[in-house]
Amino acid sequence: MMIGRGLVNRCAALAVLFLAFVAGGPARAEDGYALWLRHAPLEGEALERLRRFSGVVIEEEASTETSRLAAAELDRGLKLLLGVYADEIVVDGSVIRLDCKAGDGDGRFTVASDEDEIRISGPDKTSCLYGVYGLLRELSQGKDPLSVNLDEKPAMPLRMLNHWDNPDGHVERGYSGRSIFDWWRLPEHLDQRLIDYARANASIGINGTVVNNVNASPLFLTDRYIPKLKRVADALRPYGIKLYISARFSAPHEIGGLDTADPLDPRVQAWWKERADALYAAIPDFGGFLVKANSEGQPGPQDYGRTHADGANMMARAIGDRGTVIWRAFVYSEVDATDRAKQAYAEFVPLDGKFDENVIVQVKNGAIDFQPREPFHPLFGAMPHTRLMLEPQITKEYLGFSTHLVFLAPMWEEVLRADTGRGGTVAQVIAPAGMAGVANIGSDRNWSGSHFDQANWYAFGRLAWDPGLTSEAIAREWAAQTFSREPAFLDAVVSMMLASRQAAVDYMTPLGLTHQMDTGHHYGPGPWVADLARPEWNPMYYSRADKGGIGFDRTASGSNALSQYAPSVAAQWNDPRKTDPEYLLWFHHLPWDFPMQSGKPLWNELIARYDHGVAEVDRMAGTWASLEPYVDDQRFADVADFLRIQQQEARWWRDASIAYWQSLNGLGLPEGTCPPEHSLDYYRSLTFPEAPGN
Amino acid sequence: MMIGRGLVNRCAALAVLFLAFVAGGPARAEDGYALWLRHAPLEGEALERLRRFSGVVIEEEASTETSRLAAAELDRGLKLLLGVYADEIVVDGSVIRLDCKAGDGDGRFTVASDEDEIRISGPDKTSCLYGVYGLLRELSQGKDPLSVNLDEKPAMPLRMLNHWDNPDGHVERGYSGRSIFDWWRLPEHLDQRLIDYARANASIGINGTVVNNVNASPLFLTDRYIPKLKRVADALRPYGIKLYISARFSAPHEIGGLDTADPLDPRVQAWWKERADALYAAIPDFGGFLVKANSEGQPGPQDYGRTHADGANMMARAIGDRGTVIWRAFVYSEVDATDRAKQAYAEFVPLDGKFDENVIVQVKNGAIDFQPREPFHPLFGAMPHTRLMLEPQITKEYLGFSTHLVFLAPMWEEVLRADTGRGGTVAQVIAPAGMAGVANIGSDRNWSGSHFDQANWYAFGRLAWDPGLTSEAIAREWAAQTFSREPAFLDAVVSMMLASRQAAVDYMTPLGLTHQMDTGHHYGPGPWVADLARPEWNPMYYSRADKGGIGFDRTASGSNALSQYAPSVAAQWNDPRKTDPEYLLWFHHLPWDFPMQSGKPLWNELIARYDHGVAEVDRMAGTWASLEPYVDDQRFADVADFLRIQQQEARWWRDASIAYWQSLNGLGLPEGTCPPEHSLDYYRSLTFPEAPGN
Repeated sequence: MMIGRGLVNRCAALAVLFLAFVAGGPARAEDGYALWLRHAPLEGEALERLRRFSGVVIEEEASTETSRLAAAELDRGLKLLLGVYADEIVVDGSVIRLDCKAGDGDGRFTVASDEDEIRISGPDKTSCLYGVYGLLRELSQGKDPLSVNLDEKPAMPLRMLNHWDNPDGHVERGYSGRSIFDWWRLPEHLDQRLIDYARANASIGINGTVVNNVNASPLFLTDRYIPKLKRVADALRPYGIKLYISARFSAPHEIGGLDTADPLDPRVQAWWKERADALYAAIPDFGGFLVKANSEGQPGPQDYGRTHADGANMMARAIGDRGTVIWRAFVYSEVDATDRAKQAYAEFVPLDGKFDENVIVQVKNGAIDFQPREPFHPLFGAMPHTRLMLEPQITKEYLGFSTHLVFLAPMWEEVLRADTGRGGTVAQVIAPAGMAGVANIGSDRNWSGSHFDQANWYAFGRLAWDPGLTSEAIAREWAAQTFSREPAFLDAVVSMMLASRQAAVDYMTPLGLTHQMDTGHHYGPGPWVADLARPEWNPMYYSRADKGGIGFDRTASGSNALSQYAPSVAAQWNDPRKTDPEYLLWFHHLPWDFPMQSGKPLWNELIARYDHGVAEVDRMAGTWASLEPYVDDQRFADVADFLRIQQQEARWWRDASIAYWQSLNGLGLPEGTCPPEHSLDYYRSLTFPEAPGN
Repeated sequence: MMIGRGLVNRCAALAVLFLAFVAGGPARAEDGYALWLRHAPLEGEALERLRRFSGVVIEEEASTETSRLAAAELDRGLKLLLGVYADEIVVDGSVIRLDCKAGDGDGRFTVASDEDEIRISGPDKTSCLYGVYGLLRELSQGKDPLSVNLDEKPAMPLRMLNHWDNPDGHVERGYSGRSIFDWWRLPEHLDQRLIDYARANASIGINGTVVNNVNASPLFLTDRYIPKLKRVADALRPYGIKLYISARFSAPHEIGGLDTADPLDPRVQAWWKERADALYAAIPDFGGFLVKANSEGQPGPQDYGRTHADGANMMARAIGDRGTVIWRAFVYSEVDATDRAKQAYAEFVPLDGKFDENVIVQVKNGAIDFQPREPFHPLFGAMPHTRLMLEPQITKEYLGFSTHLVFLAPMWEEVLRADTGRGGTVAQVIAPAGMAGVANIGSDRNWSGSHFDQANWYAFGRLAWDPGLTSEAIAREWAAQTFSREPAFLDAVVSMMLASRQAAVDYMTPLGLTHQMDTGHHYGPGPWVADLARPEWNPMYYSRADKGGIGFDRTASGSNALSQYAPSVAAQWNDPRKTDPEYLLWFHHLPWDFPMQSGKPLWNELIARYDHGVAEVDRMAGTWASLEPYVDDQRFADVADFLRIQQQEARWWRDASIAYWQSLNGLGLPEGTCPPEHSLDYYRSLTFPEAPGN
């Protein structure tokens, strides 16, 4: 502290504490609101290199609302990176030039640099917007402006978020506060947060958003909501983002005054047409409807003896060539509960080729429900005449909510690169459609509930833009923009992020186990649960564990779900001795002493996996502790607190699971293994009424 | 914009837009998070006067955690006011000296200034904390440091907030997002927001907080919650704030394993004693329990044939001299619904003198329920042997939620200054106890849902510290700290704030009408509602309107609730010709043509009042529009948006109410009066499922 000497002498006799007004004035704490658009000031050589650029120029013919926003965004980013003030400007003639056309294409862009200028160009309205964010991404990582040369286009047309937000602000499976959509105060008031939401999305190429829960309220189809939706759509439009809504299939009956919602009834068809017209009158570029039908109690065409195609096509015709109907394939019913994993394939494959052109079928990454690890969904590749969209979940419903650090890019990379055995990878199958991520965004100051969950939002957008990116590259560029450009920091934090998903799989549901969470919340262990009304809601349905063994037989001797995959794919999972251990108990029911490829009996391997998961979280906490010098105080403490919670909860998962398996198999623990800390009864007794997100 | 000239020339042929890196770098938008502790930089003479102070000195013997916090707070505030950086420091020997003892008293303090120094002193641990905030309050208004001379002590010992927050984060009657208490992540993680909450409260003298809803979950009494509560209490303690919880009376039965919660059962007594001991072991300065018993379905001693005093004293003995039991007098039952206003008095007055010394009875400002205007509660003054605490509601359950601008200090001033006719004003009656405000604080970035609702939090604290402050003085000091010190701004905004509460009374429930809100939400009109199960839930119960007249007869010819007041007070409200028109229909049922003191018939006066309310809101919107030069962009727009909503909703209240009264009395409108915009059926048809706070 710089202290005036005269004053210190004068006070020496009585003062023990002296706070002079020093240290550069009060800096605002970093709270995570800025996301990866934080653009921390550059230093040293990187700063000097950027200082030669003194302005942003927009070519006259490229001047649209979006390109002006792009220029303002670039100006803002550069100011942050330069930390400049008016009197520090160096004008030496180098500029950044925005020169894009006003087309309606996919937003491809180039960024080309030479000594005189950096030029961002492209054929579309959004080219310069994406180009600006592309350039800022490079600059924020400290790269030499003159070395930035980008030539990019998105890999798929639809890169969307799905918000499971209810009109009253509650977010289903939301672990980051309330909804950012304030329907109560709209349309008169639009929160600044929605603008920053649009900026963040545009910066990673997201171009569509479904603003309400798939368990949909019909409110969104009422006249009263149209001005509200319009205000949001108007705010998102300049950022290249289209608004969609989840539509409740039974709305014609519930709010339309009809006695049916039968898709073949002309009155129903007319009702949807009239509603679509009203929406398009207010929002000319309205994206369309997302529909969850005949799933988990939601209404749908099967209520009237019609098919998913009947329902989807009826709505698609109401929309016409103005937009898209996205129909979810996440269905399971009480009728056939022999293997829930089989139902979507069974219902949808026969409909291949029967959907209208403007219908997309949206398929989760796996056949159950966003579990820590699932094999890719057998629908991918099995509907060659239907556009399929991939639905991964960004919010971590089954992966520790917002307190566990789990970087999801490796999981999505796994599914995107999976070879369907039917002429391409999943990424290739979805290329004509896109990806829709179930958002983890809420009113929490840091948007995602935890700082590291921002990385999952980021990674989703980046992978939808380019599924060829590696998890490592995404982690590194995210961490550099979000926390620190220091290589030592990046090496450590990227390694931690990359290991985190396998850690979660191992402490929660190793070796292909799945759906083992307790009732009433989805974040803690409940392998013992077997009392829920529908068989496929129970963890015991999935583990099939008993004294003799564990695992779900999905081979020909069991449910034969394996047969839904292409033969070449099925072959690799058919023999338990050759199956990748990560999927072993997904496809096979095996005795506890089954000899693993590692040489250990299954029981010992299972315990080793739990232990690995716990150890990995401990390692993450240790790594983070060593990174304190690189991170601002508040965010450092936030992450450290959450890792402490994760350490406790990883142990909870391990101990409760092992205690339960022991109660079934009566087996002891391998030598040197820690016993569960508490009794099985203790774990069964735990309740968490304050757990969020249901 | 400062633009490099060479560059402009060079680009003139093609550039239409040029954004140079100017304008002082990117300033953060003002979002309201800083509250009245914003401390905007001083300018001109005020800045020069403060610049002579160069440091903060703490006397050695005064060095406690709290005084160090006080010094840090002063340092932070001064830096913000000075906008200083290290190289601008002027060290000329003038300091601010903190010299307080470490007593446990009420926090009285003095601030004395001379040429050499400003000295803050006092006998208690919190003296310097309150002194620092007192000094900063003056400096933030631009006052000359050398003219600041304060000598203050709080008027009452308990200055508390009551949070109606549930463990899952939902806030009952919350219009500003979710709870700031994150019980799910506690105790491992304490959000920075709780520290800033403590700072804001300490700055206005609040010294206690009840962290959970009076409709209480027994969770807060479980072992699992004690570490969570302890973590919060530890964070609040250095700011002079004690933690209390709402205790569910039936907890011994619900979580204690007993078959009863009878307060006279020794097992029940032992259970509460054990729970109190557990809480005090973790939190030595735990404040105590707040109890809502036998009210609106909550359990209580009457369930076992015992009195409120039996219940309160049992819990008070469990706590002993370690803390306080605060027992709410807000009771009403289905048994006697002739006049809900009478019940609290009837149940509690007979118990006067029967409560233990560490029991306080907490009484709402009026006898119904936080209505826009009620006469003061007849219990004040009627229980001379019982400590009574005043419970006003800061969250605006019946006053337009967080979108209507309604400054509540005039309402509270009205009740505090009311002469009970029994030897003192309400302020004097509550002086031995205190005030508990139902908080309007949530997770919204600006804490209160709207910027102007921050003023109600502020005013509550200031009035609890000094009920002699005027609404005008509070509004002026708040607005100067929060928005702008410019006299022209202050004159306009203070005038707007002072008129706002009467405006709300007039457009909602003029002339003593009350409880006229629609079912399912509490912010819109529903005077027609008469179908709710309990009579006293219905607006029609309160208006008693029919073809012949309107109003609730509470004189001797009616419910005689008037007799609960002291004779001198009752006398002023007994004769409708002499009763203050503001309370007219509260006490009297009158024909529509009753001649008012204004000379108008009642019906015409009623309409004039509605019109006045609407006109006043229009005037507020106009005033605010003229203040744009003084206010930062985001906050200006936020307030303007909300005023637009308030303009619409004031008309809605007026029009729906008039339409309904007309349907009863068949009367036409006075000449020149605008008819309701829509039909009565339209107003009755409106529903708002997205309205918050139920």
